Amino acid sequence: MPHRKTAAEPDVLPFHEARLRVRYAETDQMGVVYYSNYLVWMEVGRVEYCKAVGFNYRDMERDDHVVLAVAECHCRYLYPARFEDEVIIRTSVQEATTRTITFGYEMRRAGDDRVLAKGYSKHVLCGTNLRPTRLPQKYHALFGVVR
Amino acid sequence: MPHRKTAAEPDVLPFHEARLRVRYAETDQMGVVYYSNYLVWMEVGRVEYCKAVGFNYRDMERDDHVVLAVAECHCRYLYPARFEDEVIIRTSVQEATTRTITFGYEMRRAGDDRVLAKGYSKHVLCGTNLRPTRLPQKYHALFGVVR
Amino acid sequence: MPHRKTAAEPDVLPFHEARLRVRYAETDQMGVVYYSNYLVWMEVGRVEYCKAVGFNYRDMERDDHVVLAVAECHCRYLYPARFEDEVIIRTSVQEATTRTITFGYEMRRAGDDRVLAKGYSKHVLCGTNLRPTRLPQKYHALFGVVR
Amino acid sequence: MPHRKTAAEPDVLPFHEARLRVRYAETDQMGVVYYSNYLVWMEVGRVEYCKAVGFNYRDMERDDHVVLAVAECHCRYLYPARFEDEVIIRTSVQEATTRTITFGYEMRRAGDDRVLAKGYSKHVLCGTNLRPTRLPQKYHALFGVVR
Repeated sequence: MPHRKTAAEPDVLPFHEARLRVRYAETDQMGVVYYSNYLVWMEVGRVEYCKAVGFNYRDMERDDHVVLAVAECHCRYLYPARFEDEVIIRTSVQEATTRTITFGYEMRRAGDDRVLAKGYSKHVLCGTNLRPTRLPQKYHALFGVVR
Repeated sequence: MPHRKTAAEPDVLPFHEARLRVRYAETDQMGVVYYSNYLVWMEVGRVEYCKAVGFNYRDMERDDHVVLAVAECHCRYLYPARFEDEVIIRTSVQEATTRTITFGYEMRRAGDDRVLAKGYSKHVLCGTNLRPTRLPQKYHALFGVVR
Repeated sequence: MPHRKTAAEPDVLPFHEARLRVRYAETDQMGVVYYSNYLVWMEVGRVEYCKAVGFNYRDMERDDHVVLAVAECHCRYLYPARFEDEVIIRTSVQEATTRTITFGYEMRRAGDDRVLAKGYSKHVLCGTNLRPTRLPQKYHALFGVVR
Repeated sequence: MPHRKTAAEPDVLPFHEARLRVRYAETDQMGVVYYSNYLVWMEVGRVEYCKAVGFNYRDMERDDHVVLAVAECHCRYLYPARFEDEVIIRTSVQEATTRTITFGYEMRRAGDDRVLAKGYSKHVLCGTNLRPTRLPQKYHALFGVVR
C-alpha cells in the first residue's frame, strides 16, 4: 500500500477538502450508502484537488490528451454514510511520478467528524488511446512529481 | 405519447424479451429498485432488441458513426421491483423514421408476470458529434422505417 | 402531462434552484451524461425543494413514516450535459393533493443558461410498507395541497 | 491482503463463475467501464456464489436478519472492459470465520479470456442494525468457516 510521500516539497498542496451531500440514489436496501459509491466520491475528491492546485482535469483530458486511468483502488469502510449526510472528502497526493499518481482519501461526516472511509486510488498516465504515457511537464510541480 | 405503428410491415419484429436479475446496487433505502434504474433496463432491452433484429448496437456506433441520442423518456411505475427479482423487459419499436426511433417497453416480474413498469424512449439519430443525421439505409428494414 | 397549478396560493414556493457539478461517473462513452442520471438530479432538486419550504425529506420518512413513491417520470433531453458542467435544477410543485404530488423540473447549464432538460415526476404518498396513504396535515400548506 | 485459505476442506466450492454483459450505462467518456462498476460486478459474483453453494443471499437477509456489511474492498484494474463485452466473474471464498468473510474475484473477458480485474472484498457479519454478530450455524459449512 502506498505511503505518504516524505520528500521535502513544500509547494505541494497537503490536502484538499471537497464536500457533498449523500443522495437517495446512493443508498441501498441496507439503509446505508452502497459501497461502490465511495469510489465515485473519490473521483469528486480528486477532480476538486486538481482545481485546488490550479488546473481543471477536464481541460487536461481535452487539451493535453492524457487521462488518469485507474490501475488500483482500495477502500476501508469504517462507518456507514446515510442519506442526507454531508460528507467531507480529504484528498491528498500520496505519490507522484511522471508515470503514476496515487491519491489518498479520508472521508468524514460533517458535524461530528466521524471517519466514514479511507482509501487510495493509483492511476497510470495514459494517452486517449489508453496506452501509458508521461505526465506533461507543466503538471509536474502541481503534483510534486519525484523523478 | 407515441402509439404502436399500425402500418402493414410484417417483417418487423413485434417485440423482444430480455431478462435480467435485480442487483443489490439497484435498490435504495426504501427497499425497492431506485427509479432511475428502470431507464438502464430500457437500454438493456433496446440493445438486445437490436441484436434480435440482426445487428449489434455497438457496431453501429463504431462502424457507421451514428448514435441513438435520447430525446425523451417516459416511465410509469406500477409495482416495485426488488432485489433478486428476475425482470423481463419486452421491447418493441413504436415508431421509426430516418430521423427518429421510439422504443416501447413493458417490464414484468418473471414467475407471476406482474407488470412492474411501462414506458418509452424516443431517440434522434445523430453523428458522433451529436448533430442530427439520418439512419443508414441498411437499418431501414430492420426498424421498419416509414419514410 | 400535469400543468402548473393555477390556484391562488400565494404562500407556496414558486420554485427552488439546486446546483450540482457533473461527475465523471455520470458520463458515458458518447461523451455526455447518461440519460438516467437526470432522474437522480431530479431527486436532488426535490430534496432541496423540501428543505427550502421548511422540512427535511429524510425526517419525513423517518418520523412520519411516509415516502414519496415514484409513480411516473418524464424527461425531455434538449441539450447534452457534459463532465464538469455546473447544472442548475429548478424544481417546482406542479400539483399537490393529499394523495399525490407532482414536481416539475427544468435543468439549465450555469454560465450560459442553456436549457439541458425538462421533466416531471409524479409521486404517490405511501407508508413505509409502500401502500398508499395520505400526506400528514402538517405538510399540506408547504406543498400547497388542494383538497 | 487476505490469502487463499489453505485448510483441508474439500467440501467448500473452489469458485463460481457468473457472467454479465457490459451495459452502456457502465461506460464513461473514456470509452471504457467506469471503475466503481467493477464493485457492482463483485456483488453480482458473490450473490451468485451464495446460490451456487445452496442458499439465496436475499433470504439470509430476510429470514436470518444478518447482512454482509462491506469492511474493505480492493481492486486491480488490468485491462479495460468495454460496452458489450461479456465478463466472467470468478468468485471464491478466501477466508471465512463466524465474524468475517472475504471473497476473492477475478474478472475475465469471455472469448479471449483476457483478465480485466482482480480484487477482494472483506465483509463483517452484522445484524440488520449493522452491529457485528456471528454467522448462523447453518451457513458455516457452506462458507467453510474456520473457527
